[in-house]
Amino acid sequence: MRRRDFLGSIGRTIPAVAAATLLPSVFSAQQTVSKARLIVRSARPEDLETPVHLLTSWITPNDLFYVRSHFYTPSIEPGAWRLRVDGDVGTPLELTLGEIRALPATTLVATLECAGNGRALFDPPVAGVQWEKGAVGTAAWRGVRLADVLRKAGVRSSARYLWLDGADRGVGKAPDFIRSVPIDKAMHADTLLVYEMNGEPLPTAHGFPLRAIVPGWEGAYSLKWLTHIRASASDHDGPFVQAGYRYPRRPVVPGTVVPASETVPLRGMPVKSLITSPANHAAVPDGEVPIAGFAWAGDDEIGRVDVSIDGGRTWVEARLGSDRARYAWRPFEYVWRPPQSGSYLLMSRATDSRGRPQPILAEWNPGGYLWNAIDRVRVNVGVATPASLAPASGGAGAIDDPGASILQSRCVACHDFRLIEQQRLDVDGWRRELDKMSGWGAGVTPEERDPLAAYLARRYR
Amino acid sequence: MRRRDFLGSIGRTIPAVAAATLLPSVFSAQQTVSKARLIVRSARPEDLETPVHLLTSWITPNDLFYVRSHFYTPSIEPGAWRLRVDGDVGTPLELTLGEIRALPATTLVATLECAGNGRALFDPPVAGVQWEKGAVGTAAWRGVRLADVLRKAGVRSSARYLWLDGADRGVGKAPDFIRSVPIDKAMHADTLLVYEMNGEPLPTAHGFPLRAIVPGWEGAYSLKWLTHIRASASDHDGPFVQAGYRYPRRPVVPGTVVPASETVPLRGMPVKSLITSPANHAAVPDGEVPIAGFAWAGDDEIGRVDVSIDGGRTWVEARLGSDRARYAWRPFEYVWRPPQSGSYLLMSRATDSRGRPQPILAEWNPGGYLWNAIDRVRVNVGVATPASLAPASGGAGAIDDPGASILQSRCVACHDFRLIEQQRLDVDGWRRELDKMSGWGAGVTPEERDPLAAYLARRYR
Repeated sequence: MRRRDFLGSIGRTIPAVAAATLLPSVFSAQQTVSKARLIVRSARPEDLETPVHLLTSWITPNDLFYVRSHFYTPSIEPGAWRLRVDGDVGTPLELTLGEIRALPATTLVATLECAGNGRALFDPPVAGVQWEKGAVGTAAWRGVRLADVLRKAGVRSSARYLWLDGADRGVGKAPDFIRSVPIDKAMHADTLLVYEMNGEPLPTAHGFPLRAIVPGWEGAYSLKWLTHIRASASDHDGPFVQAGYRYPRRPVVPGTVVPASETVPLRGMPVKSLITSPANHAAVPDGEVPIAGFAWAGDDEIGRVDVSIDGGRTWVEARLGSDRARYAWRPFEYVWRPPQSGSYLLMSRATDSRGRPQPILAEWNPGGYLWNAIDRVRVNVGVATPASLAPASGGAGAIDDPGASILQSRCVACHDFRLIEQQRLDVDGWRRELDKMSGWGAGVTPEERDPLAAYLARRYR
Repeated sequence: MRRRDFLGSIGRTIPAVAAATLLPSVFSAQQTVSKARLIVRSARPEDLETPVHLLTSWITPNDLFYVRSHFYTPSIEPGAWRLRVDGDVGTPLELTLGEIRALPATTLVATLECAGNGRALFDPPVAGVQWEKGAVGTAAWRGVRLADVLRKAGVRSSARYLWLDGADRGVGKAPDFIRSVPIDKAMHADTLLVYEMNGEPLPTAHGFPLRAIVPGWEGAYSLKWLTHIRASASDHDGPFVQAGYRYPRRPVVPGTVVPASETVPLRGMPVKSLITSPANHAAVPDGEVPIAGFAWAGDDEIGRVDVSIDGGRTWVEARLGSDRARYAWRPFEYVWRPPQSGSYLLMSRATDSRGRPQPILAEWNPGGYLWNAIDRVRVNVGVATPASLAPASGGAGAIDDPGASILQSRCVACHDFRLIEQQRLDVDGWRRELDKMSGWGAGVTPEERDPLAAYLARRYR
């Protein structure tokens, strides 16, 4: 079965057989995320970042959990929803939610992080949602083992990849968002299909009614709004497997274009830490200052976390908290007594159990993935923080240039304006993005391309 | 004697007593610096930076040595030149060059570094010459001990400071550039008055015919074109002692204004290192790559230098070179064999003999002084560096805004345009600079101040 057929099969009409009465009432309401406290990187598609100083508990509350969506959030009628399982299996399945909930349930606390978390910190800038530090969170995920579903379908030994597809659709002519999980990871007992998040039904923004959890690996494997799983001997040939979510085989010259043949797929996330308290630019009183946060290392364990209160000259070991789970971040804390009032640059540096520490600067790569540099937070002890240094609220800004009309007609129909404004690309970078978007149906004419690229580079660099 | 009297005394006519025949012929020609290979931060006053990749020898050749001038370079007729020594002394002196050269001579190899070296790297930006990394160099300085001159003048025990003044004059109404050296440092056997630099007569750009060398301390103590030394029980009250070259007592909130009463004078320079080879963004062939540079620590010694080739995750100790002198930088080298071709971020981190390492980020301060963060150089092994990543040449750029006319009439008469263009200040920062410059005779009217500040902030931020 080729990718075209796979896509086509999803478009078939699925008979609505399950009566609403068969479903638990919790599935009848589609939750929406409260955006009041999240940073809107894009409203449509919905990309919301958690301000890191709100990450104060080991389990991240649902309404604070970052949201990453590639396309528009689908509206799903749970009674009509089915999960199809086919491909290299003995018994193709079409499962209702009730049938999935009837399988043995398990709960896993796991940290989920967008591969592009920290992209805004790369220099030179790279295209994509300009996440700063808060596209990460930890939840208790409840559902069933993916392996149980695959065994039920009689997955064949020839299957080497599992293609995951959800109910969301590419905008315009953009290709469908499909990801591919190697069979060993898919069959691992900790890889789940989940319908609950922190004891609540999975919220719409997080994949209602069912999403994958591929723990320790970059977040895009944990596909949302799951509707179709296909076992295959070959990898998927779509752009979200063959072009996106890939990393250079070798360290590359910053700012260069890297052919896909020189890249490998992202998998486990690297060692990383975040100081979540005090907040960046916080003014704190004299006395004891608890420096606290979280550290994680994908599917590896945290070995230690060190904290510096002198700009990275010297380090002291932080105490690791008792909350722990194999794929979850680990709390750390160091109680600091500032020697005098003033402004201090605090840093945290995690080392995984294999002795690999965070770097001072993350390796540049064209996707802006895996930012994991030593974290930095400035704190002002016994002195006020000037209003001008408060974190930016990220307003959309005015459009006062005639070039904006092409932008308005060709881009803003699909993209939140703020997504465009974040990019900071040069003219060549914009031309590449426009060519890609044109291929996906953006409708930018050849005459419009260069003036639009020039305008975007001038306006948003 | 008040500062006004001190300034007045310099203006007196000095009788020309020394015949040209008494002077060595080397003093009859005033050398000029070849600017061909230096980065022009300002042409007038003359502020020239050395590209760090040209710092390849322990002794920096004169024509590569950075130049820092506060005001215009004075033209000095050596036959008429005198050094006056007065104030709290038993025998005021007026010395000719011949008389100074008749004193016992000594040679000292010392590193000189501008206090503002690295200013361009501070965030938020601060006003001043936007030095990057190359306002540092090492020379063999030959001259006489300042203590010998002071003893000859019979310096009194009441003297606690030595005021140094040179033949340069403030531009417009700007105050004269006068610095003050505490008596203990002035009397130290290594503090010199020098007339030779690397075996040549002191070049004009470096203070012909005589400059101070106050080794280990920030460069502005080593006053050029010296004409007057005054011993005093009190510190000098001019702005280059009471406002400039000072550092906050306590770490301050970045971007804030710090009152002078909350600052202390700069003295010794902190521990620091520079990778001078390979050059930043250099493309090098596969094979052995020597990573080399210099490390120094003001009037302390270097304990060790470590090098990282993986973005600061891990460190290896570099070999220190045999060239050494108490106040001179120390060469270091580590021969690296890249594991594969690609782009690498190299770092160097020096630790002084008292165990104090360089920080990851230098402490922000309103003068932009003492940048000494761990150094970083990117190198591309076996791959080309794109032209777009070559170091910026720093062209002056076009002026295409009507607001530029105020700038042209009020500022560019005295300042090199590039000095203005470097500043990156916000409106408030520019208002402060304009107020200071207006006090110094810039002639900006009250009506011009705010529009000019707004234009500058918009154009050069």
